[in-house]
Amino acid sequence: MPHTLVDVCRRLEKHGFAAEIVGDRDREIVGVATLEDATDREISFLSNPKYERMLGRTQAAAVVLKPGVVAPDELAQIRVDDPYAAITALIVELHGYRKHRAAPDRTDDTRIAPSAIVGENATIYPGVTIDEDVRIGRNVVLYPGVYVGPRCQIGDDVICYPNVVLYDDTRVGNRVTLHAGTVVGNDGLGYAPVNGKWIKIPQIGHVEIEDDVEIGSNCSIDRATLGRTRVGRGTKMSNLIAIGHGTHVGEDCMIVAQVGLAGSVTVGNHVTLAGQAGIVGHISIGDHATVGAKAGVTNNVEANETVLGQPAVPITEAKRRVLSLGHLPELRQKVRQMQKELDALREQVRGRAT
Amino acid sequence: MPHTLVDVCRRLEKHGFAAEIVGDRDREIVGVATLEDATDREISFLSNPKYERMLGRTQAAAVVLKPGVVAPDELAQIRVDDPYAAITALIVELHGYRKHRAAPDRTDDTRIAPSAIVGENATIYPGVTIDEDVRIGRNVVLYPGVYVGPRCQIGDDVICYPNVVLYDDTRVGNRVTLHAGTVVGNDGLGYAPVNGKWIKIPQIGHVEIEDDVEIGSNCSIDRATLGRTRVGRGTKMSNLIAIGHGTHVGEDCMIVAQVGLAGSVTVGNHVTLAGQAGIVGHISIGDHATVGAKAGVTNNVEANETVLGQPAVPITEAKRRVLSLGHLPELRQKVRQMQKELDALREQVRGRAT
Amino acid sequence: MPHTLVDVCRRLEKHGFAAEIVGDRDREIVGVATLEDATDREISFLSNPKYERMLGRTQAAAVVLKPGVVAPDELAQIRVDDPYAAITALIVELHGYRKHRAAPDRTDDTRIAPSAIVGENATIYPGVTIDEDVRIGRNVVLYPGVYVGPRCQIGDDVICYPNVVLYDDTRVGNRVTLHAGTVVGNDGLGYAPVNGKWIKIPQIGHVEIEDDVEIGSNCSIDRATLGRTRVGRGTKMSNLIAIGHGTHVGEDCMIVAQVGLAGSVTVGNHVTLAGQAGIVGHISIGDHATVGAKAGVTNNVEANETVLGQPAVPITEAKRRVLSLGHLPELRQKVRQMQKELDALREQVRGRAT
Repeated sequence: MPHTLVDVCRRLEKHGFAAEIVGDRDREIVGVATLEDATDREISFLSNPKYERMLGRTQAAAVVLKPGVVAPDELAQIRVDDPYAAITALIVELHGYRKHRAAPDRTDDTRIAPSAIVGENATIYPGVTIDEDVRIGRNVVLYPGVYVGPRCQIGDDVICYPNVVLYDDTRVGNRVTLHAGTVVGNDGLGYAPVNGKWIKIPQIGHVEIEDDVEIGSNCSIDRATLGRTRVGRGTKMSNLIAIGHGTHVGEDCMIVAQVGLAGSVTVGNHVTLAGQAGIVGHISIGDHATVGAKAGVTNNVEANETVLGQPAVPITEAKRRVLSLGHLPELRQKVRQMQKELDALREQVRGRAT
Repeated sequence: MPHTLVDVCRRLEKHGFAAEIVGDRDREIVGVATLEDATDREISFLSNPKYERMLGRTQAAAVVLKPGVVAPDELAQIRVDDPYAAITALIVELHGYRKHRAAPDRTDDTRIAPSAIVGENATIYPGVTIDEDVRIGRNVVLYPGVYVGPRCQIGDDVICYPNVVLYDDTRVGNRVTLHAGTVVGNDGLGYAPVNGKWIKIPQIGHVEIEDDVEIGSNCSIDRATLGRTRVGRGTKMSNLIAIGHGTHVGEDCMIVAQVGLAGSVTVGNHVTLAGQAGIVGHISIGDHATVGAKAGVTNNVEANETVLGQPAVPITEAKRRVLSLGHLPELRQKVRQMQKELDALREQVRGRAT
Repeated sequence: MPHTLVDVCRRLEKHGFAAEIVGDRDREIVGVATLEDATDREISFLSNPKYERMLGRTQAAAVVLKPGVVAPDELAQIRVDDPYAAITALIVELHGYRKHRAAPDRTDDTRIAPSAIVGENATIYPGVTIDEDVRIGRNVVLYPGVYVGPRCQIGDDVICYPNVVLYDDTRVGNRVTLHAGTVVGNDGLGYAPVNGKWIKIPQIGHVEIEDDVEIGSNCSIDRATLGRTRVGRGTKMSNLIAIGHGTHVGEDCMIVAQVGLAGSVTVGNHVTLAGQAGIVGHISIGDHATVGAKAGVTNNVEANETVLGQPAVPITEAKRRVLSLGHLPELRQKVRQMQKELDALREQVRGRAT
């Protein structure tokens, strides 16, 4: 259903944006798209000045942009201080979140243990397996290939995309989203060396995923040896992330793709771990800390600190090292030159002495 | 069916190789194997001189090798300039590509939405789910556990190995192969910070995989927030690779295992990204560029450039840095020594002055 | 069933521990837990002195700890030299390994090719696919979504967790455990460049997983181009690990999460590869070698050697480099200062000469 630009602007105001229309207030808007892809019935935005030249070429019905940015007169505009935040609000308003299929009838193919309890209004696709003594809340969506192991507890409004695997005793809070192929609660790397062989230590702990967590695809989260591995409320994770046994991640963290956390790590709240970073076992990362991309963290990180490098050090030190490293070849050259000067001077002093 | 060595040689000539037989032209060949594993009815090859000593021990019926390499007289041989290319051609000739099961009858277990259209001659294993409004071309093979989300479009001659997941609206070209466990089109890490919490931004874009792409197992490719994430025609990817939302990969690229591309990256054509490399968001990699193993790329890379290191720099500079770093301890030693010499000289000058 | 502390102590003695009880010998014990989580019917342990203060707060029924460590008088104790080894033995004694569901009746949903042979006492969940000409031993457990490709051979007492995929011709020994989502035998990155495009080389080799191997979740192991890719007896692997085509891993190795091995690598026995390490193709890692976390190995590693860094070098050299790098900014400062001193001295010498 189309909206007019005025209507779109009102929705932004409802979200608290001070928004002003420039140009045709009656343009019809059906959705949001990039400057490149937008048709003449879609609204777009400019946030990064790097793409300013795109304004002259876009087919968009209208564009959201900052006051002061120059745009073609014929282009309808909404001016706001933060175009990215505004377009985000418009995506929610005009498109909303993914709609899942209405609950299909359960078929024989759906494999639900008689002892499992599933709350009302669930969408359980054929090809889902729910094992013994599981408890599942309301409005849950389980896509094909999902496996829920014995004694798992899952809250309300949880979405598991295809082929998510929850091992036995995993606990999942409310409003949690797990993307396809993610595995929660597999045994960690727990072995005792006996006569040059590895003897398995039973991993009798579990994993706890708290409310409002979202985890990307193909992640692996080990169950604890004893006790629990924890992903705290509101934390968001990308893809292909490994979390070791007994590690506790706090609340509202952001973990980027391919990060690896060893076992028994403690991560505080509001921590950012950038892509491909690695954290060794048994250390702590303080609240609001940031670990840079590819960093290798081998020691505790203080609250609010930003670290980078391998081994990771505070970011100013890391940058100083990289800068110095760039100058290292010329430093070697310089030292060789000074040695010559020194030798020449010594020769001169000696010559004069004789 | 066995072939004689002469027949094998003719097939190489058909592929454009100048090939010459040394020894028994009538040896029977049923297949290709390594020097180590070959039986007396298999042909093998020597490409890397490092393994030359294996020639004396192999059981192979015959060996493909370069002119000039010394081999036992009793060993039948085919001499060509490029043995590796020749053996590759022979693998195709004698073994061919994997044969998939002929289309089984569709069973009740196969979950195909009534609104989905599947082209002729498809092999859809039981345990595949095809969701609403999907369009699939001809000669497609979908292994068990594959999930094809609503409105996906898949071309002809596509193979999806077990447990491949295509989220809604994914577009896949012709002759595409996706290996087991790979996930295409899951939501990327798109959140807006509001009062210290992360609010999800609906990811309304999609992923487009162009013709002749092959993607390894357990990869994760984010859908775009808006618009599309793209993997260009003919690009080949290994396993456990992460591609972020809105990233565009060009044509005929080679991406090695565990590479991570953040969001909104633009990769040109014929680019090589070596194992465990990482690329930060919003940068460009030019055509024919090479990113070395484990490199951390934080700035644009020019066409034809090779970069290495963390942060990545042109390869000659990277090597110079590593070399200098190796000399750094002795450089420190040297500077300490020079300081002593300098002090001694100053003392000497001062002593003479008095 | 509860045990008394005396009974628990006897079980430790049976495992060869010299154990001594301090305090109430009749405390009832039902299981093992962490100091933090233990209830008054669970036994816990203290191994790392860092957590000594927890002894004053724990609710545990008893604690296993070293002789000499001070603990509250009211806390029942078992004193042993190696508390971690002792608690490991107790976990096995009191909890044991995961119990799998008794073999369910095979349902129509189970997709087993008529030509496949499955040994006695198997637990094959609904949703498993076993393709043509497969041979499977006794006491095997296959969870939902497992796919076993044509001609695979699987030994006795093998466990495949949900969504494990074995491509055609994979061989798996006895007592092997594969965790959820792991893919074995997919095609490796084998292409020949022809006129700027990549032509696929059929990957006609296979993968062999030997006895007593355990592999974590979401790993990817390429089949060999020719011959085999091998994971040797008793080797243990964590999650998200990539192994390239034709690579041979020896016996009793330990491979930590997100490690990547390129193709044609040879890894000896008893090798440790720490998290996120990467190994380039065609090199060897000797027996009992250790590769540090995030190391990038580009050359052969000798037996018993420990390497670290990118590129990886022997650990003492790697540490010397990192230390020197930390001093690099001050070294530059120092050299600048010395240049000034040198210039001043030269000036002085010249002044005196005139």
